[in-house]
Amino acid sequence: MNTWYVLGIDLGGTNVKCGLVSLDGNVISRTHLATAGFISDKNKLIQALCGACHNLLHENHLKTKNILGAGIGLPGLVDVRKGVVKFLPNIPGWENVALKNIMEKKIKMPVFIDNDVNVITLGEWKFGAGIGIRDLVCLTLGTGVGGGLILNNALYRGPGFTAGELGHIPLNEDGPLCNCGGRGCLERTVGNKYLIEKAQKLFGRRDLTLEEVNRLADRGNPSALKFWEETAAHIGIGLVSVVNLLNPKRIIIGGGIAKAHRHLFPVILQTIRKRAMSVPSQMVQLKAAKLGDHAGILGARVLVDQAIHGR
Amino acid sequence: MNTWYVLGIDLGGTNVKCGLVSLDGNVISRTHLATAGFISDKNKLIQALCGACHNLLHENHLKTKNILGAGIGLPGLVDVRKGVVKFLPNIPGWENVALKNIMEKKIKMPVFIDNDVNVITLGEWKFGAGIGIRDLVCLTLGTGVGGGLILNNALYRGPGFTAGELGHIPLNEDGPLCNCGGRGCLERTVGNKYLIEKAQKLFGRRDLTLEEVNRLADRGNPSALKFWEETAAHIGIGLVSVVNLLNPKRIIIGGGIAKAHRHLFPVILQTIRKRAMSVPSQMVQLKAAKLGDHAGILGARVLVDQAIHGR
Repeated sequence: MNTWYVLGIDLGGTNVKCGLVSLDGNVISRTHLATAGFISDKNKLIQALCGACHNLLHENHLKTKNILGAGIGLPGLVDVRKGVVKFLPNIPGWENVALKNIMEKKIKMPVFIDNDVNVITLGEWKFGAGIGIRDLVCLTLGTGVGGGLILNNALYRGPGFTAGELGHIPLNEDGPLCNCGGRGCLERTVGNKYLIEKAQKLFGRRDLTLEEVNRLADRGNPSALKFWEETAAHIGIGLVSVVNLLNPKRIIIGGGIAKAHRHLFPVILQTIRKRAMSVPSQMVQLKAAKLGDHAGILGARVLVDQAIHGR
Repeated sequence: MNTWYVLGIDLGGTNVKCGLVSLDGNVISRTHLATAGFISDKNKLIQALCGACHNLLHENHLKTKNILGAGIGLPGLVDVRKGVVKFLPNIPGWENVALKNIMEKKIKMPVFIDNDVNVITLGEWKFGAGIGIRDLVCLTLGTGVGGGLILNNALYRGPGFTAGELGHIPLNEDGPLCNCGGRGCLERTVGNKYLIEKAQKLFGRRDLTLEEVNRLADRGNPSALKFWEETAAHIGIGLVSVVNLLNPKRIIIGGGIAKAHRHLFPVILQTIRKRAMSVPSQMVQLKAAKLGDHAGILGARVLVDQAIHGR
C-alpha cells in the first residue's frame, strides 16, 4: 500500500492535540494529552509527544515508513529554518530547544516545527476557509490575539519568524499598556481577558462568561448587542491597518469569540468599508474559520508537505 | 555594440522626469517636462512623454533596438497586469487608461507601468538603501505619505495593486477625518500639509516652511526640536504596526521631510524599540533613502527587467 500520512501535533498551554492526517486532508485518528502536570518539564513533555506519536501509528497499524513526517505547532517564537523553539511566552523552561533534532532522533522521521498560528493559517488556506486564495490574513481571537499571513501564495514569516502579529497593532497612541510593552494594542482591547473584565463590569456579575454574553445578544439584550458592536468596531479598526497595508483578498477570523460572529462580522466589515481605502476594502472578504479544533493538525499536514517538497 | 538600456519615466503632479538607464543602474541622461499646462489633457501628456522618449534616444545616438523597454511610475492606482491606469487621485481625466498599449504602439518598445512608490521601492531595493535585503518596507513622506513592500525578495502589490499604503495606518480610533475616508491616519498626522499648518500655528508665522523648521532645529531651537520629536513619535507608532505585522529587516524612509532625518530617525527608532514587540523591533534597521531624485528612474529599470525576465 502506497498511502502516506502526516502526524500533526498542536501544542497548547493545557493540552496537546495529536492527529494522523492523510495527504488529501482527512483526519484519520486523533488523540489528546493533558499536560497540566508537566508542561514546563520539557523532557517529560517531549517524551509524552513521542509516546503519542507511537500510539497513533500502532493503533492505526502503520509503520514509520508510512509517515511523510511530523509537523508541530507551538505557541511562541520558532526558528523554522533551524527547527529551534526560541521561547514560549506562557510555558517556562522552553528556551532555545532544538525540538526538530531531538524529535527526529526519537521518532525516526522528518519533523518540522512552526508557530501555532502559522500552522493554523496553513490549514485554513489549504483545507478550510481560504482554499484557492493567493493573499489572505488569518486572525485568531482568544486570550491571545494572533495572526498569520499568506502573501503571493506562500506563508510569510518574516526574517525573524515573527510576522503576522495582528494582536499588537496599536489602536490608539495613548492606549493602555499591553503585555508586549506597546500601548493600545488590539489584543489589549479585545483579548478574552479584557473582554471578560469589561462584560463583568457592564453586567455587574463576576461569574459572567463571554459565551453568556453571546447568548444574551442572541436573545436581543441591548447591552450585550452593544458590547459585541463595540468589540467588532475595535477589531475592524485593527483590520483597517491590515487592509490598507496588505490588500488581502480574504480575512479569516477564528478563535473563541469568533463564535459570536453573527454579532461581530457585520460590524467588522462595515467598519473596514467605512474606514479603510475604497479599493482594498471593497474587495476584501470576511470568513469564519472552518477547521475549528482540526486546524492545527491539518495545518501540520501542509507544513510537512511544503517543507519536504520545497514549497 | 550589445549594451542595453531602459527608459525610465516618473510622472508627477507638476513635472515628468525621464531618464536613460544602463542595465547596471547608471543614469546616462535625463530630461524634464513641465506639465503645468496639460497634465489633465491625457492625449497631450502621452504625446509629450513619447516626444521625451524619442529625444532621449536621439540625443544619445541610440535606436529603439538598443532599449529593453520603458518603465513608468504613476501617482495613483495602476493595474500592473493589464497595464491600465485605474485612476490618479490628483490628476483628473485619467481613468481606466490603457497606457501600456497606447505607449507601446507609439514608441515601439515594451512598456511597463506601476504605482510611483512601488517603482521607487524597486529602485531603492536594487540600487539604493535596500541592496541585498529580502524583506523591507519603504516609507515616503511628503504631501502624500506612501509606501512599498518587498517581501520574500519580491515587490508585494496585493490582488488589487493597492498594498503598501503606510500613510493610511490609523494612529487613533477617533482621530481627525482623513481624505481617504478613514480617521487618524498617519498621512492625516504627518503629511506635509498638516505639518506645515501645525508649525505655522506653533511659531505664529504664516510663511514658515518645513525647511525652516528643520534649520531652526539644527540650531537647537527648543520648539522646533519638540516639533520634530512629536512628528517622529507619530511616524514611529505608525511603524509599530508595520514592524509587528511584517517583521521587516529594514525600513527605508524617503521624501521631503526625511531631510530632517537627523531630528527624526533617533526618535522613530526609539519609539519602535519601545512600543513594538521585542524580536522584530530589535532586528529592524532604519535607513534614509539614497536615490533621491533618481529613485523613480532607477526603479523603472528594475520594473522593466523584472517584467521581461519574469521575476
